[in-house]
Amino acid sequence: MTGTTIGFVGLGGMGRGMAGSLLRAGHAVRVWNRSPEPVAALVAEGAEPAESLAEVFAADTVVSMLADDTAVERLLLDPALLAGARASLHVNMATVSLALAERAEELHAEHGIGYVAAPVLGRPPVAAAGQLNILAAGDGALLARAEPLFAAMGQRTWHFGDRPSQANTTKISVNFLLACAIESMAEACALAEANGVRPTDLIDLLTGTLFPGPVYSGYGAMVAERRYEPAGFRLPLGLKDVGLALDAGAVATVPLPFGSVLRDAFLDALAHGDGEKDWAAVASVARRRAGLPE
Amino acid sequence: MTGTTIGFVGLGGMGRGMAGSLLRAGHAVRVWNRSPEPVAALVAEGAEPAESLAEVFAADTVVSMLADDTAVERLLLDPALLAGARASLHVNMATVSLALAERAEELHAEHGIGYVAAPVLGRPPVAAAGQLNILAAGDGALLARAEPLFAAMGQRTWHFGDRPSQANTTKISVNFLLACAIESMAEACALAEANGVRPTDLIDLLTGTLFPGPVYSGYGAMVAERRYEPAGFRLPLGLKDVGLALDAGAVATVPLPFGSVLRDAFLDALAHGDGEKDWAAVASVARRRAGLPE
Amino acid sequence: MTGTTIGFVGLGGMGRGMAGSLLRAGHAVRVWNRSPEPVAALVAEGAEPAESLAEVFAADTVVSMLADDTAVERLLLDPALLAGARASLHVNMATVSLALAERAEELHAEHGIGYVAAPVLGRPPVAAAGQLNILAAGDGALLARAEPLFAAMGQRTWHFGDRPSQANTTKISVNFLLACAIESMAEACALAEANGVRPTDLIDLLTGTLFPGPVYSGYGAMVAERRYEPAGFRLPLGLKDVGLALDAGAVATVPLPFGSVLRDAFLDALAHGDGEKDWAAVASVARRRAGLPE
Amino acid sequence: MTGTTIGFVGLGGMGRGMAGSLLRAGHAVRVWNRSPEPVAALVAEGAEPAESLAEVFAADTVVSMLADDTAVERLLLDPALLAGARASLHVNMATVSLALAERAEELHAEHGIGYVAAPVLGRPPVAAAGQLNILAAGDGALLARAEPLFAAMGQRTWHFGDRPSQANTTKISVNFLLACAIESMAEACALAEANGVRPTDLIDLLTGTLFPGPVYSGYGAMVAERRYEPAGFRLPLGLKDVGLALDAGAVATVPLPFGSVLRDAFLDALAHGDGEKDWAAVASVARRRAGLPE
Repeated sequence: MTGTTIGFVGLGGMGRGMAGSLLRAGHAVRVWNRSPEPVAALVAEGAEPAESLAEVFAADTVVSMLADDTAVERLLLDPALLAGARASLHVNMATVSLALAERAEELHAEHGIGYVAAPVLGRPPVAAAGQLNILAAGDGALLARAEPLFAAMGQRTWHFGDRPSQANTTKISVNFLLACAIESMAEACALAEANGVRPTDLIDLLTGTLFPGPVYSGYGAMVAERRYEPAGFRLPLGLKDVGLALDAGAVATVPLPFGSVLRDAFLDALAHGDGEKDWAAVASVARRRAGLPE
Repeated sequence: MTGTTIGFVGLGGMGRGMAGSLLRAGHAVRVWNRSPEPVAALVAEGAEPAESLAEVFAADTVVSMLADDTAVERLLLDPALLAGARASLHVNMATVSLALAERAEELHAEHGIGYVAAPVLGRPPVAAAGQLNILAAGDGALLARAEPLFAAMGQRTWHFGDRPSQANTTKISVNFLLACAIESMAEACALAEANGVRPTDLIDLLTGTLFPGPVYSGYGAMVAERRYEPAGFRLPLGLKDVGLALDAGAVATVPLPFGSVLRDAFLDALAHGDGEKDWAAVASVARRRAGLPE
Repeated sequence: MTGTTIGFVGLGGMGRGMAGSLLRAGHAVRVWNRSPEPVAALVAEGAEPAESLAEVFAADTVVSMLADDTAVERLLLDPALLAGARASLHVNMATVSLALAERAEELHAEHGIGYVAAPVLGRPPVAAAGQLNILAAGDGALLARAEPLFAAMGQRTWHFGDRPSQANTTKISVNFLLACAIESMAEACALAEANGVRPTDLIDLLTGTLFPGPVYSGYGAMVAERRYEPAGFRLPLGLKDVGLALDAGAVATVPLPFGSVLRDAFLDALAHGDGEKDWAAVASVARRRAGLPE
Repeated sequence: MTGTTIGFVGLGGMGRGMAGSLLRAGHAVRVWNRSPEPVAALVAEGAEPAESLAEVFAADTVVSMLADDTAVERLLLDPALLAGARASLHVNMATVSLALAERAEELHAEHGIGYVAAPVLGRPPVAAAGQLNILAAGDGALLARAEPLFAAMGQRTWHFGDRPSQANTTKISVNFLLACAIESMAEACALAEANGVRPTDLIDLLTGTLFPGPVYSGYGAMVAERRYEPAGFRLPLGLKDVGLALDAGAVATVPLPFGSVLRDAFLDALAHGDGEKDWAAVASVARRRAGLPE
């Protein structure tokens, strides 16, 4: 194993594509995943399978893309694992809380391992194409080391400061804005429809004039057509991300009234059985409130 | 005066440019305004001054662009004026309530005058350039008659149905979405700043990735840089438009929780002296709630 | 007709009992109502029927108890009526907006008629028993003149200042607090039930300890038992009163976030067909949001 | 030491009075507290000091009154402590989350120890007087064993079911209602004041008519007079309790829009330096929103 081996943890929809991008860029990648299938798929693309997390952390650099705080905490914030690691850099690309980012940074420092945060914008197909937008924060020298990896996985790296949690703050803020855009369109479409305007006509106008771009056109179509399956991003994950924003606000005493409305709307959607749908299904709540037909 | 004369009422920032566009397209335009200065300016461009609203309504077609319900009600929904009118079509391009649209349509019908609604998207420079987006609704034959005027004033006409109030619903919905976008960015920027991320960095990321377009870049810059003067659209007008959305929701029993948050935030901004600033100054409320420095 | 005749306008559920209380206290009362039945009933108790509002305003003092701003505006704020009046005092006991109170005071002053506001607390049976709480505001000498009438109709008169609108502000604030208490219990009962606690047990605890009194026990029982019919106070009237609070807040730039939540909840209830139920039926919204069975 | 010894953990403002009540009722009480002063005070009243938590859990019955989930978790949910315990009953009287209640019940069961929840209503002087209201839930036989202790500490025991978390749900719901009442009065007082009505006049009316009882009179006076020090219950504890309600709602998918408003208001108050004041100081937020002088 050469010094350029990358350990990669977490081969879900996103991680699979990201690890694949690293492979295609010529990096040696040693992969680990809780379930074996994605490992096999990546081994077929040239990756080396790791038998354990310890083997992953024997690489120079570890990249991780796990689901949430709980997974990161349980799998990676393990003092024994970090104490035995040969890795000198861990790039955590998951969307995690600020509290976790700070704890992780501290714990890695205790074991002499650099820690940077690099959450991403983009869905699985974008990850597979190596076209993510990467939101990076942490020590400048460490980020410079990580940049070739970012270049393989993303179309652009955006920098937000030298504390890893700054990138997590940014990612949480972006997801908050996505949720706000969905709820805004949900309320506007309910208002339009109840007053005799076709939601699709409203969305066409919006995206053709003031609100171009993927959020208003993509989610707008879903909201206007009430098409929430299959889920691109499941509703409970949306609630989780709204919760990350509210928690980040609580720590810094930032009231987020839109965030509060969002939280209530997501709970309402879950209470009505939308847990397996795309998070845009939160728009069904605005319709139900107004007594519009399901 | 030929049959093609257009009467034009309301030469504010928007109306002035719209009447100018009609002139430049070769229409004969007879103009009226409460204060005389804009009349003189347009006469210099070739318009004919009207001494009274009756003279305006002696034209075939009347186009009006007044400030709000109150102005429309007082100046134009005057049974004596309408009874004496020779005009057979009134194109109301103002942002008014659904209730007013319906009353206006009815009253015009009683006097045998066609009434269509055609509120617009675009600020004064866009109006001056004849590049507005025009949201039209009303009887199809009447809209066909108005289309040459729309072509002179706008880059595109969007249709929303055969009841005039449908265009007003749409316009109110769009302004509601603008206000939602501002408040969303205000909360996100407060969250970012309180957690150590520069708001301008967040806005750059947004507009460079998921949220392109004039709303997020234009208002985003204002919010991130806290630059609310000079006002492009004054804050009390923003409150008025949020109120139009809430009223439209009340009539159709559509709860708008984001709208309710917006209303409270606009009142808060007014209570703190932001009445002369751009409506993006509502973002100062999110900062104040969080105890961030003014 | 002696100088002590009282003209009374508005014999709804409340006004009927109030006029009856005046009669029982020995006052001469001349009554008017839009529909004739309540007039006949009061004539049987000794009242004199008025053929017109002009006859009512020929009495020294007029007491009115109409449904809302619209009724007051249409029936009583009539310059011709006031110009011809012999009355020198009008006691308006209805729940009206601050704007109407101010306009009424001004218009009466123009015609040399004193105007005081005296909205009440209490439901029809309390009015019938002459046990209302009377919230009075206006010129001190006028209130002194009205006090014998208040003594006949109420158990106590509370004073709030020398501008009539101060009493209306107070009444609006009290109704706002009633609505807040209902929504609070609605949310708490939904929370309790969803976590396995019987709402009636919660309400028993509340009223037996920290929250004694008619509001928590009366509305608490309705909410816990989901018993909203027959309506003591219809839901659309509740929405109207919440609207009065929001309007009063808008004029004085007072954001009322609880008021905003209430408005949305009342609209939601109306959208789901609860318009004929007691306003406590707004509690059904909290249950629906949570997916609890109807 | 006989079989009737009670181990008591947590001698804060509440616990001190409760342990004193047990002593006065003739119970043998062995006390433990993190800081030594309250221990000394109770020893002077006849208590036996415990050197360790193990000594407390060597009693037959343990009563605990700790500050929050964190304290309970760290001090009492210790498998080693529970494994070595002789106690067969733990009565947890603190206000804790439903999640903690469930975890605690399970963990105690694993070690053969009965666990019941019995949070209380009442402030320190009420605790000292043995006049608390006790909200009890858990196994019936265990509650029967605890009843003599409840009788010593409280004026009445209220039962909410056989799962301990039901008592915690109830306590959380009551505190939620207290916070709602405070915010309601805060908004109403801001509305009244901004429209020229003295808040004290409004509160006098409320407590003299529809809203008798300690909550509206006690907190009403604090809100109307803006008197938030010394703190009876500190504002961050209020935020914590609102958070418990929101968390309980999240688990059971119960949206709590009033709770969301409360959370934002408490954060706003904290952001403005009110962390050492009574939680009624959240009312200062309603004034600030309205631009009323501090």
